[in-house]
Amino acid sequence: MGKVLKYAMVGGGKGALIGDMHRKANAFDGKAKLVAGCFSRSFESTLEFGQALGVNKERLYKDFYEMAKTESKREDGIDFVVIVTPNYSHFDACKAFLKAGIHVACDKPLTVNIEQAIELQQLAKQKNLQFMVTYTYTGYVTVKNIRAMIDEGELGDIRTIMCEYPQSWLATRDGEKTKQGAWRSDPKLSGRSNCLMDIGTHVENMVSTMTGFNIKKLLARMEVVVEGRKLDDNSSIMVEYDNGVSGLYWCSQVAVGHDNGLKIRIFGSKGGISWFQEEAEKFHFTKVGGSTMEIHRGHSSIKESASVYDRIPSGDDEGIFAAMANLYSSFIDCINLQNEGEFSQEKIDYPTIDDGVNGIKFVEACLKSSENGNVWVDV
Amino acid sequence: MGKVLKYAMVGGGKGALIGDMHRKANAFDGKAKLVAGCFSRSFESTLEFGQALGVNKERLYKDFYEMAKTESKREDGIDFVVIVTPNYSHFDACKAFLKAGIHVACDKPLTVNIEQAIELQQLAKQKNLQFMVTYTYTGYVTVKNIRAMIDEGELGDIRTIMCEYPQSWLATRDGEKTKQGAWRSDPKLSGRSNCLMDIGTHVENMVSTMTGFNIKKLLARMEVVVEGRKLDDNSSIMVEYDNGVSGLYWCSQVAVGHDNGLKIRIFGSKGGISWFQEEAEKFHFTKVGGSTMEIHRGHSSIKESASVYDRIPSGDDEGIFAAMANLYSSFIDCINLQNEGEFSQEKIDYPTIDDGVNGIKFVEACLKSSENGNVWVDV
Amino acid sequence: MGKVLKYAMVGGGKGALIGDMHRKANAFDGKAKLVAGCFSRSFESTLEFGQALGVNKERLYKDFYEMAKTESKREDGIDFVVIVTPNYSHFDACKAFLKAGIHVACDKPLTVNIEQAIELQQLAKQKNLQFMVTYTYTGYVTVKNIRAMIDEGELGDIRTIMCEYPQSWLATRDGEKTKQGAWRSDPKLSGRSNCLMDIGTHVENMVSTMTGFNIKKLLARMEVVVEGRKLDDNSSIMVEYDNGVSGLYWCSQVAVGHDNGLKIRIFGSKGGISWFQEEAEKFHFTKVGGSTMEIHRGHSSIKESASVYDRIPSGDDEGIFAAMANLYSSFIDCINLQNEGEFSQEKIDYPTIDDGVNGIKFVEACLKSSENGNVWVDV
Amino acid sequence: MGKVLKYAMVGGGKGALIGDMHRKANAFDGKAKLVAGCFSRSFESTLEFGQALGVNKERLYKDFYEMAKTESKREDGIDFVVIVTPNYSHFDACKAFLKAGIHVACDKPLTVNIEQAIELQQLAKQKNLQFMVTYTYTGYVTVKNIRAMIDEGELGDIRTIMCEYPQSWLATRDGEKTKQGAWRSDPKLSGRSNCLMDIGTHVENMVSTMTGFNIKKLLARMEVVVEGRKLDDNSSIMVEYDNGVSGLYWCSQVAVGHDNGLKIRIFGSKGGISWFQEEAEKFHFTKVGGSTMEIHRGHSSIKESASVYDRIPSGDDEGIFAAMANLYSSFIDCINLQNEGEFSQEKIDYPTIDDGVNGIKFVEACLKSSENGNVWVDV
Repeated sequence: MGKVLKYAMVGGGKGALIGDMHRKANAFDGKAKLVAGCFSRSFESTLEFGQALGVNKERLYKDFYEMAKTESKREDGIDFVVIVTPNYSHFDACKAFLKAGIHVACDKPLTVNIEQAIELQQLAKQKNLQFMVTYTYTGYVTVKNIRAMIDEGELGDIRTIMCEYPQSWLATRDGEKTKQGAWRSDPKLSGRSNCLMDIGTHVENMVSTMTGFNIKKLLARMEVVVEGRKLDDNSSIMVEYDNGVSGLYWCSQVAVGHDNGLKIRIFGSKGGISWFQEEAEKFHFTKVGGSTMEIHRGHSSIKESASVYDRIPSGDDEGIFAAMANLYSSFIDCINLQNEGEFSQEKIDYPTIDDGVNGIKFVEACLKSSENGNVWVDV
Repeated sequence: MGKVLKYAMVGGGKGALIGDMHRKANAFDGKAKLVAGCFSRSFESTLEFGQALGVNKERLYKDFYEMAKTESKREDGIDFVVIVTPNYSHFDACKAFLKAGIHVACDKPLTVNIEQAIELQQLAKQKNLQFMVTYTYTGYVTVKNIRAMIDEGELGDIRTIMCEYPQSWLATRDGEKTKQGAWRSDPKLSGRSNCLMDIGTHVENMVSTMTGFNIKKLLARMEVVVEGRKLDDNSSIMVEYDNGVSGLYWCSQVAVGHDNGLKIRIFGSKGGISWFQEEAEKFHFTKVGGSTMEIHRGHSSIKESASVYDRIPSGDDEGIFAAMANLYSSFIDCINLQNEGEFSQEKIDYPTIDDGVNGIKFVEACLKSSENGNVWVDV
Repeated sequence: MGKVLKYAMVGGGKGALIGDMHRKANAFDGKAKLVAGCFSRSFESTLEFGQALGVNKERLYKDFYEMAKTESKREDGIDFVVIVTPNYSHFDACKAFLKAGIHVACDKPLTVNIEQAIELQQLAKQKNLQFMVTYTYTGYVTVKNIRAMIDEGELGDIRTIMCEYPQSWLATRDGEKTKQGAWRSDPKLSGRSNCLMDIGTHVENMVSTMTGFNIKKLLARMEVVVEGRKLDDNSSIMVEYDNGVSGLYWCSQVAVGHDNGLKIRIFGSKGGISWFQEEAEKFHFTKVGGSTMEIHRGHSSIKESASVYDRIPSGDDEGIFAAMANLYSSFIDCINLQNEGEFSQEKIDYPTIDDGVNGIKFVEACLKSSENGNVWVDV
Repeated sequence: MGKVLKYAMVGGGKGALIGDMHRKANAFDGKAKLVAGCFSRSFESTLEFGQALGVNKERLYKDFYEMAKTESKREDGIDFVVIVTPNYSHFDACKAFLKAGIHVACDKPLTVNIEQAIELQQLAKQKNLQFMVTYTYTGYVTVKNIRAMIDEGELGDIRTIMCEYPQSWLATRDGEKTKQGAWRSDPKLSGRSNCLMDIGTHVENMVSTMTGFNIKKLLARMEVVVEGRKLDDNSSIMVEYDNGVSGLYWCSQVAVGHDNGLKIRIFGSKGGISWFQEEAEKFHFTKVGGSTMEIHRGHSSIKESASVYDRIPSGDDEGIFAAMANLYSSFIDCINLQNEGEFSQEKIDYPTIDDGVNGIKFVEACLKSSENGNVWVDV
């Protein structure tokens, strides 16, 4: 176990779901400690909330520029920053900390357009900093196991992939009146997409994480199916990966009956796999000609590279905070390794800025395809 | 209960699955009796098999032309014919019986091209004959109930539809060596499509049956994902119905882990529905803002127009033979009503030749779209 | 395929569920034809209903004594009789036909007390007649497969068995106002038990069918949990089989949320099995240390002795009528074999009168245990 | 939000599952901070492990007696202790801290016999200390909601309860070779029961938590079904609650196919409920005469008293660490309230020492019943 790291948070003030998740994920394994923060645009709120969280008053900041500058100069300054503001401000915040030489964990999607994404990607490489984009679902033991199974050829040659992400929280316009709904459905704050930016990026990333495939081209139909809404709430995408394999994606925020139904099915010449986010600690595997097996985290067939993340035996759910903690676990290990001069790329077991960039490329290609009448577009 | 009718069968010889299903479905409620047949291209086989089924030798025929001619002249001639030959010969057989003034029940898909389909449609109308295309799944009580729920506005305005039909029986090329696999995957016998002809037509029909929507235009990608195969085995289709609502279809014969996974999800402004063929005697219904209910055939919320088909209480499965029997039940009732001069269109509660024609139009439009680079095509 | 047999029915008049099931099951494979009947205590009803079913008027009878006598003397007399009257009259009807030398298929439970059951058993043996007690669920392919798996040692040594049968149709006293509810909950017509007689016998029989185990002793608690009711509606039983293995049974008619939830779980030293009646065409199998497999009728691991009953591939439900048809299939085969002098006991693949007797023994032991303060009682 | 409390841990050294869970649960909401510990019988191990956890060396203790004495005298001494040693040493540890006037959270089962349990109960009352027994599953939002539903009469009068807890980890004798298996199956360390002590107590507690019912009498059959084992591994219990309602419990550690299958079904005159631990963030509810609803944590029908514990919307699993955090949340609140002089019994929303005592009474009554030939025994 490496050194316990110090981190700061940008955003994630009182009542913010995502910030709380990141704090819980960091507390989970005790690998990092919150020591600084700028939680809100109101300094008063930051002061009140930060102190309630046990952060020293002097390390609570008016804005993230000040925090980046000050922390980078402290001897006991933060090791990394966690950025959990609304999407449109990811870019400025990430940039400030990268420039200050501080490792970054940023919530997905990385940015609201591709120019920003690429600029951050270049900056991170140039500064040689760890940059995690927190696609939380990739942290599940089952996801890591499926990736290993595919790597080792247990599915044979992949023939086709079906990935869907139905939700229902925007089935009525009331959904837009929630705190999240408000900024997500406002083009000024979310850019040109809501549904694909928010959940489409998960779809793109999960398939890529499990298979290692990248999308070569796609044909998208982005729709607004609830009258009066400005940004997409239901989208279908045909994709072709760079190895010629086909995929079909469906994302919806109006799918009544689904809470958070991300489901990935991958079909190969030797077997098929189905993973469902709402039951994320198991998955289904079927060999060609055989019956379907329900494999749980903790079962005997789970591979070492995945089971190393298990905390408790199968039968109890570790939950999503544990999944996110798994991401931070590797991220923090990598920072520690880098500090000790022992880091190398293959140590990375978390979603990087390259994943973040791919997500934005995906959304932009979908927008282009959709705006041009649902034509094939290179990614 | 009307008169017990007399029927003949074309195809469905020894070992043929579909013919046996139709005979069981007719025997189920005792509404029709098999009295004649031409079960095989080998007259010897027809004679042997037909007599084993209890058909009188003199009503076993060398070919269906002879059967149509002879039976139409008998005083005790058949009331209707059941056609369960491979797809490519549906046309000739149907035509022969329609010309002879005999009602027809034909397995789906109706024909292998649209010209044939339309010719049959016109002939059936002109001759004023009942013509059923046996889309079996539409016979389930749950399907009839969903149709009624949508009719009565329980889902509100439909926003989008997702329908998938994954199977796995052609996951390897061995699948093509089965009796069915052989003719289905042979362009000479199946026309230009296998996957969409066989299961895509079910998708098109089920959505249309449940919602009453017709497809205005579509964009299809038909694929061959198993090397060496000639006809499509995996297909995705974006559709737009004539009322502007969108749909997404996925059909696959290589989806390892799925036996016969036809699933239809319909999302409206008031509620959402999910129906899954492998558990066809229940469905899931969620009202906007509520929790999902699992409604079984036989439950108190099932509507009269659907529950009238129930034979036993919920908790035991009636099965697919009962579903097909439900189709024949209405078909036979309609013939009896017509014979008594009391028939009218609204009595029809079975899939008609119009449904059959729509299936072929759908496949042809998919072929056109796919062959032209996945572009939108009017149906 | 053997000779098509002729059968008569006692009971099963208009609107009767169980009689209709037996007729459909016999029509299913065309192995037997209904030629005589006494469907109702009202001869007028029998005449009307019988003729509607296509039975010749002269073979419709005022009572079953007359039918047994007359049919046994006809040259073209019935080969077997199907008895589907309420439980209390099974005994007289069965006896009449056995005495007349006619094979019998009787619905379960065999009789309402053990003296009757044993008298029938002795008579059937003495007369050397086939006698089937229609425990329908034993006809499922999956049940036959589980029996074969256990026979072949795939579960290792059985350690314990858990079997439950929750229903909800008597959750309110309204349930007793239905046609079935009325006689089932009336001690004059049902004897001393409702819940255990009706569904407890299924539990006893299914475990015995799957494992071949007989109950040596048991400890039962039969309860009336809905106020005002006379016969048991919720019962728990601890059992010990003759090999020392333990079992636990629970049967309830007040279990709101369950339609017809018979579930059997068998745990051995090598593996465990779970079979659930509401999804009867699949079951779950887990090897010690492995993940659970969902095995469907039609899958590759299904054994020949079970799959021989399959009519269609996995993925569509054959349903309960097919399960009952499987029982009749073997019953009819055995009669044909006996007629040809080729019958032997090991040909039997249907539940016999011995199973019927065991059911009644089980209920009587439960009554004795329960009435004596829930003590162990030998069966 | 109250004051952040300070706690110590007894047991839970390196590699111990349960101790780690308690630490994570306390870190989850940041309501308590680990400041002292005696993690192992080896002081060296305690020193190494405790410092790795960030505990100051001077507050790492050789034994819990020393810790109790020293901490109770420090001005900045611990507010509560968490006891996560093997069962047999709960008593001594709890007693030491109670005597020192320190609030206690102890893992279940409370002790290994009833005399110990009652002594602790009396001591806790006398000292006026908070005492939590960590029946973790009671922390789930769904459990709290079911309790509220039953309180408010949504199930009507409860008629019967079925609770099962099948596991498979002792299906072979290898299970006894694991760290946990070793002490759990050793009578010297676990007392006279393994299966009922370990999981039977959960069953007793969950039913009691959900319904508020206490067991009046019971009839138990405790079995050893794997040859060579000393303590029970499979048990069935008939119970009667003090209001005359009946229940049936089944616990097994040899149920191959089940990971951790605690399931509670409660049937009333107005509705039925089913809760399954492996899918603990939802439950099923059926009103008499209606269809079953699947209600998830976060859905609109969840009551305020339960939903107050929600951290994220439905569709993602919070997991078992969150459930345990919910217990600690109330426990810590109660300590804070007591410190502020504002505590009253109705503030308690965690399982108390009374629950702990009931668990031991239950096991002792089962032992007595079982050892006397499965007779009814008062609890």
